[in-house]
Amino acid sequence: MIETILSSPTQVVKIGPQHPFVIIGERINPTGRKKLAAEMAAWDFERVRADALAQVEAGAHVLDVNAGIPLVDEPAVLAEAVRIVQSVVQVPLSIDSSVVAALQAGLAAYQGKPLVNSVTGEQDRLEKVLPLVAQYKAAVIGITNDETGISEDPAVRFGIAKKIVERAESYGIPREDVLIDPLAMPVGAVRTAGTTLFTIVRRVREELGVNTVCGASNISFGLPNRTMLNATFLSMAISAGMTCAITNPLEESLLMTVLAADVFMGLDENCMAWLKAQRRAARRASGESVDESQRRRTRRERR
Amino acid sequence: MIETILSSPTQVVKIGPQHPFVIIGERINPTGRKKLAAEMAAWDFERVRADALAQVEAGAHVLDVNAGIPLVDEPAVLAEAVRIVQSVVQVPLSIDSSVVAALQAGLAAYQGKPLVNSVTGEQDRLEKVLPLVAQYKAAVIGITNDETGISEDPAVRFGIAKKIVERAESYGIPREDVLIDPLAMPVGAVRTAGTTLFTIVRRVREELGVNTVCGASNISFGLPNRTMLNATFLSMAISAGMTCAITNPLEESLLMTVLAADVFMGLDENCMAWLKAQRRAARRASGESVDESQRRRTRRERR
Repeated sequence: MIETILSSPTQVVKIGPQHPFVIIGERINPTGRKKLAAEMAAWDFERVRADALAQVEAGAHVLDVNAGIPLVDEPAVLAEAVRIVQSVVQVPLSIDSSVVAALQAGLAAYQGKPLVNSVTGEQDRLEKVLPLVAQYKAAVIGITNDETGISEDPAVRFGIAKKIVERAESYGIPREDVLIDPLAMPVGAVRTAGTTLFTIVRRVREELGVNTVCGASNISFGLPNRTMLNATFLSMAISAGMTCAITNPLEESLLMTVLAADVFMGLDENCMAWLKAQRRAARRASGESVDESQRRRTRRERR
Repeated sequence: MIETILSSPTQVVKIGPQHPFVIIGERINPTGRKKLAAEMAAWDFERVRADALAQVEAGAHVLDVNAGIPLVDEPAVLAEAVRIVQSVVQVPLSIDSSVVAALQAGLAAYQGKPLVNSVTGEQDRLEKVLPLVAQYKAAVIGITNDETGISEDPAVRFGIAKKIVERAESYGIPREDVLIDPLAMPVGAVRTAGTTLFTIVRRVREELGVNTVCGASNISFGLPNRTMLNATFLSMAISAGMTCAITNPLEESLLMTVLAADVFMGLDENCMAWLKAQRRAARRASGESVDESQRRRTRRERR
């Protein structure tokens, strides 16, 4: 059975078809978050701390940490973010950068066995990222594009997955430490985005025997009701064999979808996790209505 | 490619992996609906008419019609219900009974090519139901249980599916006119209910080349937040290859899930059906809030 193991000094997370689906929290990423970017650039990590705590509280099993901010010393900021996140939460981390020096700094700062996000099938990236992954005995996400771009042909993307797994092995990285990202393209633009991804997930699992992961929200880009689309897509990908995703655990419907999918994959014994999540949601809902009535009362008293 | 064709005098519905998912509306069924049962027994079909119209308006492609009421002349009531439903809506029907004489009466009353719901793998049922299906050139749902009950082993249920398809062919019913129901068991009681169903759906499609269908709500029996469970289950089954389901089209989240799944199966060209459904939902939501503010104003004026 496929099994990828990540760890922090106090926690082990196992990814594989025999384990409940793993959610990698995507929030600690300054891309498109102006405030967060400005704060991190100014060495202010309060929001990073808060986002880390909130995501783990919501149910994230791993946190992605990215410090891709224009004109900053990304290696230094990423390393500091990694140290800070590890000081407030116990889950393993995914160290996320397209800059090799930043990956190296993040890896050096990290305690435990992290995930490296990511390498592509490009020759140059393989040669620079894989030795680092091997040196730090980390796991790595392999994205199925290369010098020729992103193919719409699932066979071409599968071929890149195969190449990444083989190259990783040649650097001494066991194949269970490679997670393939089949790439979720926007289905509004590419009609076959869903079926292509499901096909690659199945083939990677059956023929390469490795885990798959993806960023689950790109698929709905440009379409209305993205929450519903993302949740449906995620459950379909899980049914095809996907074992983890980089997504937002603060979106309750996504989290519930993942827990429901665990139930149907036979991975939630006696539906315990499902039942617990429903009780939590009910408590939260009733707590909110208490707050609400409190607020209304206060407003009335002020008049 | 697998393709099951149902028809009414004015509409053709095609079921298969190359077509958008088909929803068979389940509401016209007196089981567990006391009022409806009493009315149908008293030859009052007003609610049947209203349920037919509401389900088609909501998006059902086919309607199931059942008249299983204790102590009534089921053949007569089912035949009348079929006639009445065909007089108010144009979609094809699924004629639903465990009583052979009622199936016969419903088939005799029906105009077009209906679905017969259902036959099992029991010798006695096969011998009685299949000749009727052949005589009326109908399609039929084959349920994967037999004299020994419902097996938890997917291989046993697949074997029953194979037997039903072969027996149907021996009666001159082409295999594309058999839809296999792999049976959704309550996942709260049977941990493997989901994985077993997905496995059977895949094998039936790949090895027998026939369509699959199921009642999609039994799976969540006894668990909280059934709507979310049913929607997740349905999208996972669609990903595995299921092509239609008997369900409640009036539950908006289920309907939206099916439309989202069509998008990811590449069956909704330019996402037109998805976009249309979102606009409809938005109009409905804004219409409701107008009603709501109207009601509030009226209440205030009364004081």
